[in-house]
Amino acid sequence: MTKPSLRNQILDAGLKVMFRKGYIGSGVRDIVAEAQAPQGSFTNHFRSKEIFAREVLDRYFEHTLGLVSQALDDKSLPARERLRRYLDIITVRLAADDFTRGCLIGDFSLEAIPHSEMLRSRLVEIFAQWRAPFAACIAEAQAAGEIATTFTADDLAEFLLASWEGAILRMKVERSAAPLERFKTIAFNTVFKEQ
Amino acid sequence: MTKPSLRNQILDAGLKVMFRKGYIGSGVRDIVAEAQAPQGSFTNHFRSKEIFAREVLDRYFEHTLGLVSQALDDKSLPARERLRRYLDIITVRLAADDFTRGCLIGDFSLEAIPHSEMLRSRLVEIFAQWRAPFAACIAEAQAAGEIATTFTADDLAEFLLASWEGAILRMKVERSAAPLERFKTIAFNTVFKEQ
Repeated sequence: MTKPSLRNQILDAGLKVMFRKGYIGSGVRDIVAEAQAPQGSFTNHFRSKEIFAREVLDRYFEHTLGLVSQALDDKSLPARERLRRYLDIITVRLAADDFTRGCLIGDFSLEAIPHSEMLRSRLVEIFAQWRAPFAACIAEAQAAGEIATTFTADDLAEFLLASWEGAILRMKVERSAAPLERFKTIAFNTVFKEQ
Repeated sequence: MTKPSLRNQILDAGLKVMFRKGYIGSGVRDIVAEAQAPQGSFTNHFRSKEIFAREVLDRYFEHTLGLVSQALDDKSLPARERLRRYLDIITVRLAADDFTRGCLIGDFSLEAIPHSEMLRSRLVEIFAQWRAPFAACIAEAQAAGEIATTFTADDLAEFLLASWEGAILRMKVERSAAPLERFKTIAFNTVFKEQ
């Protein structure tokens, strides 16, 4: 069974290349070169770059959801602290790449969207799926009196994830954790302030 | 004097193309085609795509600073309301493009940085220059007792601009004003809450 492994190898290479060059800038040639795969192998496995990119994005998101559940499902912590824990886990991941890589979901949101309605509509779904466990955790924190109920859990979850993408954007420019830490400190002392 | 006008024409085209295709995805060929300029004209006026992109970014930022001063220099409004006014002015601009275009500074922050240390260091300067009038306005609001002094004006300005970029990112995916309006409502009722 060499085929499934080559397929995965190309998908792994695709993530690396797309992190570096974006969706538009990543040529099929770059991807197969990174995968050390023969030229023809890409078209054997993927119908188009667009479909390939969606699969790269889906795999990345699946991995992200794993980190979400690692943080938010840990019932040993109060709900409010679990939210913070997620951001800390991501901070460690971003630090491992010296803050040169951000979030593929954010990258595609700014860059791939004018070029692919398929990726845009997939991103709409991804943000909805991503928001759900955060909204549930925030609702739990609100019910426990840890977070104010001024805004709905859905709106707060959306605010958290969107603003976090903004912090990652600033991190990429500064190449430091400062924008991430600043975001956490301010957000958890204001919007997500302990009641 | 046709030369300066052709130069500007190419720069204007560059902004349009880079909004659509990003820094990496925009070829010199796309840019001269958009400008309806002869192929050779690009290299007559610009030493490289990187230097050209920096000039496109600088012109865009200069325009942005005009909008900043339109909002923040309007002393007829309390300082806190001027901050909000800036976000409202930008919201109208983004709506004019049906929320398909975001902010070139944000786009380059995510996409151009792995490819150009020159653009990255220019973005570091741009964010510092961009932050300054916001920090001054926030300090004024803090001195007037309109905004809490828990955090420094610099940190709050940085938080505001970074989170706003995050809201724009979400806007591009949703193609609606909802993420922008959500951000304004939550931020001005929490972090920038009236004292």
